[in-house]
Amino acid sequence: MSVAAAFVRSGRKIVAIGRNYADHVMELNNAMPKEPFFFLKPTTSYVPSGGRVEIPRGIVAHHEVELGLVIGKGGRDIKQADAEQHIAGYALAVDMTARNLQDQVKKKGLPWSAAKGFDTFTPIGSYIPKSSILDPHNLNLSLKINGAVKQDGPTSDMIFRIPRLLEHISSIMTLEEGDLILTGTPSGVGPVAPGDHVECSLTDAEGKELSALDFTA
Amino acid sequence: MSVAAAFVRSGRKIVAIGRNYADHVMELNNAMPKEPFFFLKPTTSYVPSGGRVEIPRGIVAHHEVELGLVIGKGGRDIKQADAEQHIAGYALAVDMTARNLQDQVKKKGLPWSAAKGFDTFTPIGSYIPKSSILDPHNLNLSLKINGAVKQDGPTSDMIFRIPRLLEHISSIMTLEEGDLILTGTPSGVGPVAPGDHVECSLTDAEGKELSALDFTA
Ligand SMILES: [Mg+2]
Ligand SMILES: [Mg+2]
Ligand SMILES: [Mg+2]
Repeated sequence: MSVAAAFVRSGRKIVAIGRNYADHVMELNNAMPKEPFFFLKPTTSYVPSGGRVEIPRGIVAHHEVELGLVIGKGGRDIKQADAEQHIAGYALAVDMTARNLQDQVKKKGLPWSAAKGFDTFTPIGSYIPKSSILDPHNLNLSLKINGAVKQDGPTSDMIFRIPRLLEHISSIMTLEEGDLILTGTPSGVGPVAPGDHVECSLTDAEGKELSALDFTA
Repeated sequence: MSVAAAFVRSGRKIVAIGRNYADHVMELNNAMPKEPFFFLKPTTSYVPSGGRVEIPRGIVAHHEVELGLVIGKGGRDIKQADAEQHIAGYALAVDMTARNLQDQVKKKGLPWSAAKGFDTFTPIGSYIPKSSILDPHNLNLSLKINGAVKQDGPTSDMIFRIPRLLEHISSIMTLEEGDLILTGTPSGVGPVAPGDHVECSLTDAEGKELSALDFTA
């Protein structure tokens, strides 16, 4: 298995884009970004599909279903025209977020690392080879809690598209094989309570399921 | 060579503590922390001693000389009494910081990841096995630019000591062998300009040099 296909075990970083869907930016009353921005999540936050997300005491943990990009060929200062060559595959992911803690640190100008980095805060689906996805900007992301749809949005709504994201991140830090890029979440984020069962789906334009991911809290 | 001794090549994360020396908290007009906080730096930011730190156009890059802890035995929810068993060794490090960018994101409540995460923003010295350091809270950190002393402070000034730092971080995220913890910087931080030669030293209570680290910008 390539390092990229084994990214959950072998990857060194997770780079997550914030505020990349306009509906989501508005639901949290955030400013619309003029350029992409990102934060890091530790790879210790991965939990495979079927696993359990631990919600620490006192934490309000929100789900954010996202399309993940798995880096194949590493690089620095990647040009938008070359971005596609650096992607080995995709994965369906949830960027779990300690929303109450994040709200506090945002007010104080402190880092987001703890609010985004708890163990089990990145539920992750199977590796999807690039050849299985015709157009990553023409997919649909959805998330249900206990059967009720909470998030349901098309990746065509991304404010900054994938080549722009790779260009931006790699202008700051080298990307390596096995790194995961989370590309932002559509609207509908909200709390996951202990005991909840969460099911996510990635479908193509025809409604065919490309990947599923579920977890219990 | 153990994973810990080869941490620069094999480590998966760098966890950096902010505001852990009172003099430094005051020099930046920051609030004194009531508990430790941290941010993540990508391992792609490492540059070995003798290397070159790249200062991106438009960035004011500050030096922060720090004592690094290299994790040996990984763990989660590490108790203060057990912390010492999880440390394999130490390393002298500089937490380079894009201060102008950090000031902007702090005002906007955005993540610190870019401001701390540029390639070459973590100059790193040789691995120091734990047996070479009698008391990590009784060392001295210093940094010179072009021969002029800019930072010079004792690790005894840490607000939160090493066992507390490991307890705090590992209550949020699992620590793994080869992870690096940066423990904060004493006062005297300031800009490094292109062409500057920076020399850092870690000495024990008797003034004996335990490690040196230098770079050119
Ligand atoms: Mg997100
Ligand atoms: Mg990392
Ligand atoms: Mg620092």
